[in-house]
Amino acid sequence: MSALRTVEWVDGRVRMIDQSKLPNKFAYVSFRDYRQVAKAIKDMKVRGAPAIGVAAGMGLALAANANRNRDRVQFMRELQNAAEILRKSRPTAWNLFWAIDRVLRKAQQTEGGPNEIAAHVVAEAQQIAEEDVEANHKIGKHGANLIDDNDQILTHCNAGTLATVSYGTALAPVRTAILQGKKVRVIATETRPRLQGAKLTTYELLRDGIPVTLIVDGAVGYVIQTGMIQKVIVGADRITKKFVANKVGTYLIALAAKTNNLPFYVAAPASTFNLRNDQSEVKIEERNPYEVTHIGGKRIAPNGVPAFNPAFDLTPLELVTAFITEKGVLRPNALEAEMSIHKS
Amino acid sequence: MSALRTVEWVDGRVRMIDQSKLPNKFAYVSFRDYRQVAKAIKDMKVRGAPAIGVAAGMGLALAANANRNRDRVQFMRELQNAAEILRKSRPTAWNLFWAIDRVLRKAQQTEGGPNEIAAHVVAEAQQIAEEDVEANHKIGKHGANLIDDNDQILTHCNAGTLATVSYGTALAPVRTAILQGKKVRVIATETRPRLQGAKLTTYELLRDGIPVTLIVDGAVGYVIQTGMIQKVIVGADRITKKFVANKVGTYLIALAAKTNNLPFYVAAPASTFNLRNDQSEVKIEERNPYEVTHIGGKRIAPNGVPAFNPAFDLTPLELVTAFITEKGVLRPNALEAEMSIHKS
Repeated sequence: MSALRTVEWVDGRVRMIDQSKLPNKFAYVSFRDYRQVAKAIKDMKVRGAPAIGVAAGMGLALAANANRNRDRVQFMRELQNAAEILRKSRPTAWNLFWAIDRVLRKAQQTEGGPNEIAAHVVAEAQQIAEEDVEANHKIGKHGANLIDDNDQILTHCNAGTLATVSYGTALAPVRTAILQGKKVRVIATETRPRLQGAKLTTYELLRDGIPVTLIVDGAVGYVIQTGMIQKVIVGADRITKKFVANKVGTYLIALAAKTNNLPFYVAAPASTFNLRNDQSEVKIEERNPYEVTHIGGKRIAPNGVPAFNPAFDLTPLELVTAFITEKGVLRPNALEAEMSIHKS
Repeated sequence: MSALRTVEWVDGRVRMIDQSKLPNKFAYVSFRDYRQVAKAIKDMKVRGAPAIGVAAGMGLALAANANRNRDRVQFMRELQNAAEILRKSRPTAWNLFWAIDRVLRKAQQTEGGPNEIAAHVVAEAQQIAEEDVEANHKIGKHGANLIDDNDQILTHCNAGTLATVSYGTALAPVRTAILQGKKVRVIATETRPRLQGAKLTTYELLRDGIPVTLIVDGAVGYVIQTGMIQKVIVGADRITKKFVANKVGTYLIALAAKTNNLPFYVAAPASTFNLRNDQSEVKIEERNPYEVTHIGGKRIAPNGVPAFNPAFDLTPLELVTAFITEKGVLRPNALEAEMSIHKS
């Protein structure tokens, strides 16, 4: 699986694994228009904070290529328009905004005409993808030191290869620990409503021969209170000075871990951290109630029942044992010193 | 809905609402053989601790009627056999064992031949059903005092009419508060894997015109941390000196309520309390992994993924604000004094 690339720049197109088809069908989709990329992010053909950051950056690269024949002012205006549309695709994952800003900054800093700028924009988007893979391998190395032989690790949603360009965030330490010869097993929550745990995490772990057991989200307390879990590792969509925004359900897992003295780790690259802002800046996406009332296109609740569908929740930093980043393992109180200056 | 009876003795048969068909189809099933009742409990055509207690009691009544032509020794042996089979239908809900023991005791205490004993056994089973309805209305009255106008109440699984003979346990205070003129709304968790919240709680509340909103189990933390909930009320399958055994996921809800200073109430009749034993006596049922890997007969996870499916978890009594029982509202430290002597 580590050879797989979730999002990639191939022959002037953005190619991605269509995650909405997994686990039943493995297929790629390719886009030449940035609006298609924005829609793919919105429809969650690509998902996972690092992966949608990379996809958005490559979306901007598509927009740049499409406007090479304009003058510089028009070109920059079109790039800004594309950035606005990509920014509106999903509201919570910080990596999306970080990647868009980084690519726009590269465009602004590049001298010359649209052709030169577009070339630099395309290179920058690809560079973001390469750095993501590199960061994940470092996360794997730092995180593997926290994992003991015979650990069973609980993870939520999918923060694996499929949430990144490759190798994953929360699953990277598991992969590296196994490569080091440790026996490690994973318990994956199914992660309603969209079942990323059941459909994606189990898929990529099975494919790589890593032992995984599926549970419903509500069973987290039971597996923790009966001693089946040694550590929790989750990913993140945005990390602020006070909170980790991650897939809805994460906060409950963090509470159960804290109460039962289990380490609760959050694995994320620098591009997920936004320590300049506080939680009031985090917009929690509310998705279509249809995702709750229907499963696999089939209605599970009576007609006419309203549903409420927040996609994320906020875990206070005091519930986090440590962050596993490409810069090392950081305790919450060391975050600001280590992570406040973003790479640019 | 309060006129509905989930389990009822009708013309020498046990008639029950087939809950496995809801919300798509409302239908009764009737049984003349206690083995069918045991199977209906096992297959969850009838579920909810008080309802399966009543069903098991009526199952014994069927066995008694079927053996009226035996001698007393044979009759009692057949009744014991039936009790054994009914006891094995599901392991966690205390009401099941309580009701079986109560009906057997009635048989043992009755003088005369099988005809007299059978008549008393049938009457006792019906009496248990009547007492259940009466207890629930008292739970409603005591619990309604805890509910304020405009409260939004979070509940888990189904502890309503469909989990009892009628009126419900956790939903009884909501019903009574609304009859008193208070505005009360409910948030129902869908309750994977079997979706009793999505299928049953929403069904009975919609039918009675009580406002209900459906969420996934993982969204409990978000609705609590954003102030959408004023109180939590859940039912119980077994209450011991140390723990409340209830539908898997309850423990996480209790942790979130405690952390956010929300009242967490457990509504249950005396027949759910087993204060003589401690938690080591509670067998937590593990059900078929199929319930996790499939929804509505459709596979959601890749082929070959193992799943673990505990049906209940244990909430320590210190997370419970109070128990709402037919005897009143009891703080956890008052439980033993008030509830340790079971009705017999």
